[in-house]
Amino acid sequence: MALRHIALFRWTDDVTSAQVQEVVDGLSRLPSRIPELRAYTFGRDLGISEGTYDFGVVADLPDEKALAVYREHPDHQAVLAVMRPLIADRASVQIRVPDPE
Amino acid sequence: MALRHIALFRWTDDVTSAQVQEVVDGLSRLPSRIPELRAYTFGRDLGISEGTYDFGVVADLPDEKALAVYREHPDHQAVLAVMRPLIADRASVQIRVPDPE
Repeated sequence: MALRHIALFRWTDDVTSAQVQEVVDGLSRLPSRIPELRAYTFGRDLGISEGTYDFGVVADLPDEKALAVYREHPDHQAVLAVMRPLIADRASVQIRVPDPE
Repeated sequence: MALRHIALFRWTDDVTSAQVQEVVDGLSRLPSRIPELRAYTFGRDLGISEGTYDFGVVADLPDEKALAVYREHPDHQAVLAVMRPLIADRASVQIRVPDPE
């Protein structure tokens, strides 16, 4: 079994599209720099439903050790430094998922 | 591009393990009954991190029409009826993800 880390974010009211794009650009660089990431999907909420959060990140990793590597990686920390002032609310879980086929 | 629907839940304080198991059992039946679900992962939070929600669901669907089918499907509604009284908090997003290869 592998591990799926999920984090959802609500941005502050005064967030700009350029700031969110900076987050997207930063996250886009992580898969090539953090080989522990088996799959990495993220993006803006599509606005289909009422009451949703604004942004989601799903990181698929082999195990808890890899999750720790991802979290502490300097390139990840650099994106978090960009994100942190934009975050009004955050919800996260880690769940077990089947290994990729 | 496909669509990823993510929902995280915090249970009420008095939730029982048997109630959560009933949710797990109900969700487990959905992929065979809702062909629109390309992938469906869910589970209890692993307790690795502080402040996490209790349960996560990730539904991969081809598009918004399929999301609507999933949401309104009677078997999904039956699981929601089990879940609803257990939910203290819910966070969700829908994001675009690459099509499966």
